[in-house]
Amino acid sequence: MSDSITARLAGLGLGLPALHGPAANYVSRVRTGSLLYISGQISISDDDGVEGRLGDSLTTADGVRAARIAALNLLAQIDAAVDGERERVRRLLRVGVFIAAAPAFTEHSEVGNGASDLLVAVLGDAGRHVRTSVGVASLPAGAAVEIDAIVELED
Amino acid sequence: MSDSITARLAGLGLGLPALHGPAANYVSRVRTGSLLYISGQISISDDDGVEGRLGDSLTTADGVRAARIAALNLLAQIDAAVDGERERVRRLLRVGVFIAAAPAFTEHSEVGNGASDLLVAVLGDAGRHVRTSVGVASLPAGAAVEIDAIVELED
Amino acid sequence: MSDSITARLAGLGLGLPALHGPAANYVSRVRTGSLLYISGQISISDDDGVEGRLGDSLTTADGVRAARIAALNLLAQIDAAVDGERERVRRLLRVGVFIAAAPAFTEHSEVGNGASDLLVAVLGDAGRHVRTSVGVASLPAGAAVEIDAIVELED
Repeated sequence: MSDSITARLAGLGLGLPALHGPAANYVSRVRTGSLLYISGQISISDDDGVEGRLGDSLTTADGVRAARIAALNLLAQIDAAVDGERERVRRLLRVGVFIAAAPAFTEHSEVGNGASDLLVAVLGDAGRHVRTSVGVASLPAGAAVEIDAIVELED
Repeated sequence: MSDSITARLAGLGLGLPALHGPAANYVSRVRTGSLLYISGQISISDDDGVEGRLGDSLTTADGVRAARIAALNLLAQIDAAVDGERERVRRLLRVGVFIAAAPAFTEHSEVGNGASDLLVAVLGDAGRHVRTSVGVASLPAGAAVEIDAIVELED
Repeated sequence: MSDSITARLAGLGLGLPALHGPAANYVSRVRTGSLLYISGQISISDDDGVEGRLGDSLTTADGVRAARIAALNLLAQIDAAVDGERERVRRLLRVGVFIAAAPAFTEHSEVGNGASDLLVAVLGDAGRHVRTSVGVASLPAGAAVEIDAIVELED
């Protein structure tokens, strides 16, 4: 666990997306004690993006890709919170996965795994989290997936 | 509060469903300090299940039954976390109730009560929680209800 | 930050709505340590209410108004928790914004700002929170917006 989040992503052929603060009266991260709360991160970044709805315009494979983009945005927030020092992530506690989905869609778990698998690949055992995946009507900016998280940091 | 979760359920003519771990890179429960986070539990178990959508294929009574099945799965997770010792549950803090529902459905509170009533019947005053009930487009495996929770445990 | 929540609202030409407890086996607020969890608050009060769906029967401006009503109900809960003493709110940590929305709706952030802007206007810097805004199929009682929160209080 001594290499950085950036190094682990590079080993997967991935890079951190640019970090954008929210343009509003809310913030991307709030810390209380050892708990870090992170705002919902959508499946759109400067480099990449998946918009649309699962079980409608998008396939489950598209959804997995969307979940990875949202997870990359989440990792960019975690990276900023720990100044790139991955060992300061004690545990990724909880991930909420919101999937824009048609009423008949049933493969939310497969889509959620797109995020969970990447988060564990980068954070190791500290990345193993509880998760709630649900299919919603629509998401900000037409994103296909939105992910939020609670992280336990070293003191 | 000295009888077990299993005993309280037996008194209601109910039993705990079999516990299944998630088949993925996430886990069912994570504890930090006295807080226990539990992954979303759906309204399908080995013994029983309610799939479909409220205000469409399902009635509110079906939804109440679905919420009870999801709450039983939640109780099975809590029971595993406290090794069956109900007095180790200091407080069920928060319950999220996600209900697969049509746009015109309005009886989310009645459905949520199916879970809340069972949780308080089993956990007593320690089971009185805050709750957020919403109607979503679809849920994993076509489940009608999904419930997650945060529980405060004895140290 | 020495004036009360009520005073700050009065300065905005607003007042706290009447506080209603939930008519069920759940509660409006649960505190553990310095953390206060608040149940989902909908966009309907004794005085005012917005029902319907964004991108369908309702415009984004309607949604902003709905988010403010739900935020007022949230402030009424916070006010009750701190006996009107605004300085006992150390930080509004997290806000969840659930918006009843059509599949094609994309302006969830604008709607969410209706809540965030009011919360910061009343609570000051202590009101700056992380936020997750999503579009759902339907909400209790046909409400257009539902908001829940986690608040850090002074010991």
